[in-house]
Amino acid sequence: MNPTSKLDESHDPALRSWIGSANDSAADFPIQNLPFGVFRHDFEERPRVGIAIGDQVLDCLAAARAGCFAALGPLVDDALQSWSLNALLALGRGDARAVRLAASRLLRRGTPEGRRAQTLRETIIVGMDHLSMLVPAEIGDYTDFYASLYHATNVGAMFRPDAPLLPNYKYVPIGYHGRASSIVANGTPVRRPRGQTRPDANAPPVYGPAKSLDYELEVGAFVCGENAIGETVPIARAEERIFGLCLLNDWSARDMQSWEYQPLGPFLAKSFATTVGPWVVTLDALEPFRTAAFARPMGDPAPLPYLNDPGDQLRGGFGITLEVWLRSETMRAAEIPAVRLSRGSFGSMYWTVTQLLTHHSSNGCNLRPGDLLGSGTVSGPEKGSRGCLLELASRGAEPVQLPSGEQRSFLADGDEVIFRGWCERDGVTRIGFGECRGEVRAASPGVE
Amino acid sequence: MNPTSKLDESHDPALRSWIGSANDSAADFPIQNLPFGVFRHDFEERPRVGIAIGDQVLDCLAAARAGCFAALGPLVDDALQSWSLNALLALGRGDARAVRLAASRLLRRGTPEGRRAQTLRETIIVGMDHLSMLVPAEIGDYTDFYASLYHATNVGAMFRPDAPLLPNYKYVPIGYHGRASSIVANGTPVRRPRGQTRPDANAPPVYGPAKSLDYELEVGAFVCGENAIGETVPIARAEERIFGLCLLNDWSARDMQSWEYQPLGPFLAKSFATTVGPWVVTLDALEPFRTAAFARPMGDPAPLPYLNDPGDQLRGGFGITLEVWLRSETMRAAEIPAVRLSRGSFGSMYWTVTQLLTHHSSNGCNLRPGDLLGSGTVSGPEKGSRGCLLELASRGAEPVQLPSGEQRSFLADGDEVIFRGWCERDGVTRIGFGECRGEVRAASPGVE
Repeated sequence: MNPTSKLDESHDPALRSWIGSANDSAADFPIQNLPFGVFRHDFEERPRVGIAIGDQVLDCLAAARAGCFAALGPLVDDALQSWSLNALLALGRGDARAVRLAASRLLRRGTPEGRRAQTLRETIIVGMDHLSMLVPAEIGDYTDFYASLYHATNVGAMFRPDAPLLPNYKYVPIGYHGRASSIVANGTPVRRPRGQTRPDANAPPVYGPAKSLDYELEVGAFVCGENAIGETVPIARAEERIFGLCLLNDWSARDMQSWEYQPLGPFLAKSFATTVGPWVVTLDALEPFRTAAFARPMGDPAPLPYLNDPGDQLRGGFGITLEVWLRSETMRAAEIPAVRLSRGSFGSMYWTVTQLLTHHSSNGCNLRPGDLLGSGTVSGPEKGSRGCLLELASRGAEPVQLPSGEQRSFLADGDEVIFRGWCERDGVTRIGFGECRGEVRAASPGVE
Repeated sequence: MNPTSKLDESHDPALRSWIGSANDSAADFPIQNLPFGVFRHDFEERPRVGIAIGDQVLDCLAAARAGCFAALGPLVDDALQSWSLNALLALGRGDARAVRLAASRLLRRGTPEGRRAQTLRETIIVGMDHLSMLVPAEIGDYTDFYASLYHATNVGAMFRPDAPLLPNYKYVPIGYHGRASSIVANGTPVRRPRGQTRPDANAPPVYGPAKSLDYELEVGAFVCGENAIGETVPIARAEERIFGLCLLNDWSARDMQSWEYQPLGPFLAKSFATTVGPWVVTLDALEPFRTAAFARPMGDPAPLPYLNDPGDQLRGGFGITLEVWLRSETMRAAEIPAVRLSRGSFGSMYWTVTQLLTHHSSNGCNLRPGDLLGSGTVSGPEKGSRGCLLELASRGAEPVQLPSGEQRSFLADGDEVIFRGWCERDGVTRIGFGECRGEVRAASPGVE
């Protein structure tokens, strides 16, 4: 199958926008991207759906009211005027694709739609400086997977030196239900959690601020459409159930996790906060950056038939470069810029997002519009591509050096963690995800 | 603390209702109970909040429209006219208590409110035969605990013979995030899930209908009120965050569970269906049935201070008798009534519901109105009080005999599982939970 078979006019590298900043070749949001988000104007409470373009945002509520989306019909028009992405996600991939294509025409230089839209600029375009980004959907259920073989092997070696990779890993896309309530908007400060840990195996556990606070670099996938309970989603149709991808920081308290996780898995070590990046990049925008899915090492079993789609294997991967940056309080005070801790690729994942979705529904579990699937920590084979501090600093054995002279085995209060992600490929316009940010705050004062 | 200190006029055993069936001493729903649910009339789509009374239901929408709750103020009045319990749960325990007290007066024989309400009978009362019960709240997050020491020990011995009870059990109220989307209304047929299992450890796993389908007898707790993210709920205030309890069947596919659960816990073995009982019995109604919490065996560690409240230890338990009944297809055809498989007590749980709630929030996790906490399988010390087939039939070693001559190690297609729960105590009126029912249907035909 030709990996570019789904490309249309919206992907044309020659397209330029009448929003000048979108035409900068280093921009995350050229007109070939057009990711969706939900924002709030500085001057009002009501959330609005938006589409990023350069350093500006297309205000979909205002644009719909001005008739810009009328041709898409009343259902789509209404969905774009709602308070979250759920209504659009409920309509499904096809309508979302139509909205992106309509936005491309609206924001394009030299089209009739573009010329009309430009006259509405004061009404329908808002600068990113004048708004805050919200969680883009009401997330009914959040599921977190464990799709990187490298992460599973590295972490497994620490927690279970005898059996780092469990026998089910290469058959089952391992995942667990996460907490939806504590998913927070990009930029929300993250308070260091309190919890039970057992630092001394010969003494009782203690309750207090976590000492081993970590980030996890993940990619999130927003679900669109709905399958009824009892109905499975065949792998060949899974792609139509994924609206787009975003950056995701699955903050983790490692000392709480190692004490609580047996036998039912991670719980409070995760549910204090999960940061979702500002923009959801649609699979349509990502189409030119598909890569062959991760090549299973020789001797690895083939996926079971329900997870094995030749088309998916050919087209399933997304070549997203992912980076983690950190800036400590000391660095901010000394005006030292953020430092890059790692760089990896989403293409290194053992399981594709379509495999994750199909596996999730393989027992008849209903997936609803707005559900979020986390990929699990994205780690690659090289040390420099490990997606969490636990791995990067080898559980404290090899602390990370910061340019301020500080060291980090885990996060300190005041540390700001910044994820960046983008796709680049010869002959195609670079697109990005925006920055996913969060700063660690001290634990709340409280009775121990 | 006096365990009856929170009793008020609504608990008076002398009260009688003008609904005759409520005055039957064996009824689940006497006027001393007044549990909340959400129902749909046979003739309309719109869900309504209801309160069970005898074999009838007080239609709160109709009663509120008729002015019966006007004295409670517009917020409560509006909440009772909404589509689910969430609005009432958001108002909190105090308002819920006021509604129950007002309903008690409305439904009471010999009060002015009762006489007026009786004239409205045709409008505000509906027979249970003419409605279907729905999931009572939009459940934002569902968390399942593991609070029975007996269950944890029995199951642990099967999965980990060397270490049945893990070292964290007596310190950490173990729990995991469950799936909210697949929580179904009482009576919904449950389709046998498909999934990966590995029946032969020397061969690859297979994907197909689960063979070891089980029920789990649990008690659910609906959360009311809300704590902000980062804010913990002290144990002394946890009780005000629990609206009431219901029966809960956490259907489980044991063969899928044992293959998938490491290292991140149960996932698809649970997320195909969870049945919530029809009625939520308020903690206010349960107050007369409080028992001293489970006495930790000599030598067990005391709960850590954040989970240790002397008042909670004295008053934290609820003496709910719980039974599991089963009726197979063969039994139905032969007109053999359902057979009781087990009887236990919720008072045997190692952790109280207040400890579960406080632990859940101890990392700053925000709990929202409508969130559901499952207790985990309620098993007691005796064999006859084991709350799932896995335990009851000792993982198939000692199959359960049915009066039809059939045997069960796990559930067969066509089996109907019925949970019953009630509280009884000398000098106090018996109250019950109604029946939580679900029938197993064959797996959907599908590509293996």
